[in-house]
Parts: sequence; C-alpha cells; structure tokens
Amino acid sequence: MFLMRILLQFPEGLKAGALEAARKLKRKGHEVVISASPCYGACDVAFSEAEAVGAEKIIHYGHAPFRLRVKPRIPVEYVEHRARVGCEPALKKALEDPDFRKCRRVALITTVQHIGQLAEMKRFLEKGGKKVVVGKHGPLAAYDGQVLGCDPGSAVSAEGKADCILYFGGGLFHPLGAALACKKRVIAADPFLRKAFWLDGERERYLKRRKGLLMAGVSARRFGILVSVKPGQLSLEPALRLKKRLEAAGKEAAVLVSDRIEPEALENFRSFDFYVDTACPRLALDDWGRFGKPVMALADAELPVSLLEKAKK
Amino acid sequence: MFLMRILLQFPEGLKAGALEAARKLKRKGHEVVISASPCYGACDVAFSEAEAVGAEKIIHYGHAPFRLRVKPRIPVEYVEHRARVGCEPALKKALEDPDFRKCRRVALITTVQHIGQLAEMKRFLEKGGKKVVVGKHGPLAAYDGQVLGCDPGSAVSAEGKADCILYFGGGLFHPLGAALACKKRVIAADPFLRKAFWLDGERERYLKRRKGLLMAGVSARRFGILVSVKPGQLSLEPALRLKKRLEAAGKEAAVLVSDRIEPEALENFRSFDFYVDTACPRLALDDWGRFGKPVMALADAELPVSLLEKAKK
Repeated sequence: MFLMRILLQFPEGLKAGALEAARKLKRKGHEVVISASPCYGACDVAFSEAEAVGAEKIIHYGHAPFRLRVKPRIPVEYVEHRARVGCEPALKKALEDPDFRKCRRVALITTVQHIGQLAEMKRFLEKGGKKVVVGKHGPLAAYDGQVLGCDPGSAVSAEGKADCILYFGGGLFHPLGAALACKKRVIAADPFLRKAFWLDGERERYLKRRKGLLMAGVSARRFGILVSVKPGQLSLEPALRLKKRLEAAGKEAAVLVSDRIEPEALENFRSFDFYVDTACPRLALDDWGRFGKPVMALADAELPVSLLEKAKK
Repeated sequence: MFLMRILLQFPEGLKAGALEAARKLKRKGHEVVISASPCYGACDVAFSEAEAVGAEKIIHYGHAPFRLRVKPRIPVEYVEHRARVGCEPALKKALEDPDFRKCRRVALITTVQHIGQLAEMKRFLEKGGKKVVVGKHGPLAAYDGQVLGCDPGSAVSAEGKADCILYFGGGLFHPLGAALACKKRVIAADPFLRKAFWLDGERERYLKRRKGLLMAGVSARRFGILVSVKPGQLSLEPALRLKKRLEAAGKEAAVLVSDRIEPEALENFRSFDFYVDTACPRLALDDWGRFGKPVMALADAELPVSLLEKAKK
C-alpha cells in the first residue's frame, strides 16, 4: 500500500511548507502524518507522536542534527533549512557602529539557518577591514561558527582570538546565551530587522535579575524543579539530585515533569515560590516574565543551593 | 533507596493538592515525580512522561478508570475525586423551573466527581415529587448515571423511561453532549453556579452551526484531520480512512497529529480551510471558536464527505 509511514515535524516558521513536503513524499509512495505540535528546536524530536502513530521514520525539518539525551527509538532524518535573507544590510549596520569600528578581530557566530552564508559574511566583513575568526562548535551544534541557545561553544572557542563577537541572526536567545558565556562584548546583526545592536544591556539586566533571584532562592520555601521530557532536554538525574540537596537543606522540593514547560499550567499548583529550570535555558533567559514566580537556570542554582546548605550546617 | 518511582498526574482543579499527595507517598518510601502538563480527562494518561522519567507506576487523580485505546505500558492507579459541594441548592432551582415541574419522570446524570451524591440527589428529587431513573453507563464511563463528554450512555439508556434528563454538575460540555445524543430535553443543575438551565439554546446553536459546517465542508479544498496521541483519544485508522476518501473525492487532506490539539499551532500551517476532529469531542463542541477555521466532529463529517463522494461520481 505504501513504502513507509513517516512523521514530518516542522518548527513554527516552516509549518507553512508542510503540505508541500507531504505531497512530495506521497508521490514517492510514502504515507505521511504531520506533527501539529509546536516544535522549538533540534532538541524537540517527536518520538512519542511517531511511536503512537506507528511511524517508521521522523523527518525533522529546519534544524541541524543534535546530540539527544535519549536513545532515538525511531530513525530521524534532519532536513536543515537556510533562511533566504541577504546578509549585507545588517552587517553594514554593524560596520557603521562606532564601537564595532574599533574592533579589528571579530569572532563570527550564527545559527544553522544562516550557516550557509558564513563565507559570504566573512568576505563582506573582511572587505570592511575586519579579521574574521570562526570558532570550533560546541558539543550540541553541528557546524563551526554555529551557536544554539544552549550551546555557545563557537563563541567561547573564538573569543580569545577576537576583540568582540558578532552574532548574525534574529532573536535575543542565541546572542544573549553567547554574551553570558563570554567575556568579550557581543554585537547582534539582525537580518530581519536590518539592525545591529550590542547585547550589553540585555546581559546586564540578566545578571542583575540573577542577583535578585539569589536572594529569592535563599528565602524560598517550596521549589519546583522543572524537567522536560523532550529528547534533547531531559535532565532527570540532576533534577533529582537537586531535590535531595534542597530537602536536606530543610526546603520542600518537587520534580515537575512535562513535555513543554508551561507557566500557566504550573500556576495551578499554587505551591511553589521558586522554580529551577533543568530543561531549555530559554525559560530563564527569555521567558521568565511569563512565570509568576522566580525561575533560575540549573547552572545558576548552585550558588543559592550551596548557601542554603551552609546555612543549615 | 526508594520503593518505587511514581508519576502523579492531576487535572488542573486538583493540582493544588499535588504537593500534599507527594508528601504522603514520600513518607511511604516512594520517589515521586509530578506531571506538570495540563490534564483534561481520564483519556489523558501520561505514559510518555512516565516512561521518560522511568516511573514504574502512574497515579492518575480525579478521574474514574477509562477504557484506553492503547495498551497501558505502565500500571495506572486511578484515584477518583468527589467534589465537596452540596447538591440541594442547584436541584432546588431545577425543581422551581416551570418546565421541569411538568416532568414527572427524570433521568438523572452526573460526572464522576458528583457520583457519590447520586443517592442523595435521587432522594431530594423524589421528595420533590419526581420519579428518578438512573441509566446504565456507556462504554467509557465507570458508573451508572455517570456521563463523560465523549460518553453520554447513561443519558441515552435512560431517556426512554423519562420525560426529561437532569444533568447535575458544572460546565456545558457534558450536558450538551447528552442533549445532542438524546431526543428528550436536558436541564443542567450547576452546583457551582447554583443555577438550573435548559440546554435547548446551546443544542440549537450547535445544530445550526453544524448545518453551516456542512456547506463549508463541501466547498473546502484542504482538510486537516486532527488526531491526538493521548492514550484515550488516539483514533489514527479512522483518520487515515477519511484522508483516503477525501483524496479520492478530489480534495487535499493531511493527518495532523499532536498530543494536545492547539488551534494556535495549527494556524501556522496556513494551509487548511477545514478541520475534522477525531480526538476529543470538546474541540468541535466547546472550543470551536478558538479555531480560525471550521472544525467538525468525525461523526458529523460523514454527511459532507458522502456528498463530496457523490459529486465526484
């Protein structure tokens, strides 16, 4: 009847092309089922859906291959996507920036959707008088120069040889992740907004908020430790270890598990006055405003927890 | 270290008691992980989450045991919940209703959270001069007199012996489901609003909307067939069959799979001008306003589809 039943999965921005992709696979003799769930990244592979519908393969569009934290139960084919947006207007804006003009050596980072333009960006920046460094990628990214919100490796490995870091791409999640992991300043050249801006303000706001969270964490009574079951986010053991440490320090703690972490659903517990996020760093970096309570990344939680442990002794 | 790792799952209204339930189980020596996902019914058992965190058991609070459509991969213990709300004020309102006063024989239906008060309701109505009939439950409910939004069996089996049907409980989903499945009129006695009201208006509005949907379905070009992977909702084969029939009738159709069906995520496809719901009847009954496009229950889709098939011949 059909060659193979395949589940197609698209990030939100590519869902509009789903029907066309399905048509092509159908013509090849496959039976296609489309995932209608929101998909947030390469970490977010729909194994559960694929198993439920008996799919023999997942085609995951838009993201580069990713090191999952679970054994893939079904083969996954990653079909990367390259954005069709010119790089020159935004880079030009960067080159006009007075502070960026003072930087001779630039570490260039971007996301997978622009990685195909890396050579073009490099040439353009070199024509503008820059020496461009492309760093070795971290454990989760697939390409040198590529960063993920959860893997700023390409920035970290290059910053030593650069005066500043240039992020090419949209959004704040990726460049802020790099800005927090690096000592060098980060400038973002956004091809969608055709703007260039430094991340200093965002970085400072985050660090200030984190300082405030430290106090909130020390005085909190009931900790909700957020765990996502997404195959690239699952971090159960660290969550359980943190729970034990908090309990030993006299606090109440619960491990809260879901696929997507949803502030609205967490509110219904009416129990927790502090959340620790073990899932996607975006929650504490970008989405914290949606939680009615403080939310801190697991990596940042070490300090308040060790303070609590010392206070208990 | 611990006896058993258990995943606890609560509907939204009971999440506030989650931490207390976790404490009790911890005291008995268990390791507890709490599902933070929204839970919409007995159909919504978190096997995927339980497997991801290595839970050996799920305790599912609030709902009665339910006939799932998949083989349970992990044992599920259902802990039912009884609402603490008196039945007399709302029943009194019903007894004061002029149309209800004319009904001598009443088929009494309710949800699992009030099923423990069935005898008390019966006595109160009998004191009010009624003959009360409790119908045999349908295939998905667990108790005689109990209805689910997807199983009005207790109403259907009793209506022949009654002049009208009295639904005791909150919301519109359950009584509207009964009103659509039965010929007899349905009155709802809502203990939370302390009100009684007939479902006639809602029923008529639904039937009118369904008539409009029929036209929309016949002229639609691209059908999205909605399938949920929730263990009690999964209905893949009927969805695939419908897809084939629509394609044979010259329409384009895709099976769209997710755990929760979310109108906001569906919008990103920008492709479908008509949805057929094979998952929870609530989507077409209660939540249709959130979809930017017509959404029709699978059971109702037979008519437009057969019209399309005839037109093709």
